[in-house]
Amino acid sequence: MAGPSIRAIPEGDDRERLVCTECGFVLYDNPKIVVGSVARWDDKILLCRRAINPRRGFWTLPAGYLELNESTRAGAEREAWEEARAKLAIESLLAIYDIPRLSQVQLIYRARLVDENIAAGPESLEVALFSWDEIPWDEIAFPTVRWALGHEKEVQAGGDLTPRGNPVDPAAPQGL
Amino acid sequence: MAGPSIRAIPEGDDRERLVCTECGFVLYDNPKIVVGSVARWDDKILLCRRAINPRRGFWTLPAGYLELNESTRAGAEREAWEEARAKLAIESLLAIYDIPRLSQVQLIYRARLVDENIAAGPESLEVALFSWDEIPWDEIAFPTVRWALGHEKEVQAGGDLTPRGNPVDPAAPQGL
Repeated sequence: MAGPSIRAIPEGDDRERLVCTECGFVLYDNPKIVVGSVARWDDKILLCRRAINPRRGFWTLPAGYLELNESTRAGAEREAWEEARAKLAIESLLAIYDIPRLSQVQLIYRARLVDENIAAGPESLEVALFSWDEIPWDEIAFPTVRWALGHEKEVQAGGDLTPRGNPVDPAAPQGL
Repeated sequence: MAGPSIRAIPEGDDRERLVCTECGFVLYDNPKIVVGSVARWDDKILLCRRAINPRRGFWTLPAGYLELNESTRAGAEREAWEEARAKLAIESLLAIYDIPRLSQVQLIYRARLVDENIAAGPESLEVALFSWDEIPWDEIAFPTVRWALGHEKEVQAGGDLTPRGNPVDPAAPQGL
């Protein structure tokens, strides 16, 4: 199988796209939208231990790619169900993270769990509810998970509800 | 040419994707991110009259699809240059519009023009700076352009800078 694998500038375009030499298809690939949530039950936060790479075995927020014809809230709800069998009541947009290196824009919502029932979905080794002091900061899968947890803590500490963006210093530990 | 044109559920997936019968390529198509701006020069707003379909001849904000490895701010700047030869100083995120029907998430920034030089790019018939009273409300290309202009007016009227979302009643005239 070939698939779109040759870089070429299509007629009428101004940049290279991936083109298939077998069928002529031009792949107009664009950045992807990741939707996720920081979901609370009482004072605890839902995290999922990843069963898949990248970062298998590390903890993450329920999040994943938005699907076609899906609203961003519905996508965050679906991901919480798929990864943690969790039902969400979404509250507000916590943060928008712009990750051009990965061609991603992440929209992370604040949410409450509708009930305490959670269970590992196929992409999770286990799922758990952590109080702030219990969060396994050394085993967090991605920087954006740290950012979102830190931003959630800011909001809980009485910060305003304005959606956050990328931290000024993205390497700084957040929420510690 | 065939291209990915047959709907089938790939192995290990849980929903139909477009697959090419010639080369076997699976198209994981996802929603697209549109980046744009409400750009001001003094009290006037930059609009572009579309040279292309859909809605050729109607007025729009400079906006378009985010490209791979591009930050959302850089994308909004690029679109303003491509469509209106305008240089932006981006200020803050005005609004996020969630359009699942079109599989789009739109991020619209507030911006100032760096100088008064504007000119129609290849996708614009003409470009112009409009005061609020001059905006051609009956010739606006898309509902989201009305929403963004209405939200900009709210902010200018002393509203807070929290990014807006979809209006509760999306059919209601905004900014009139």
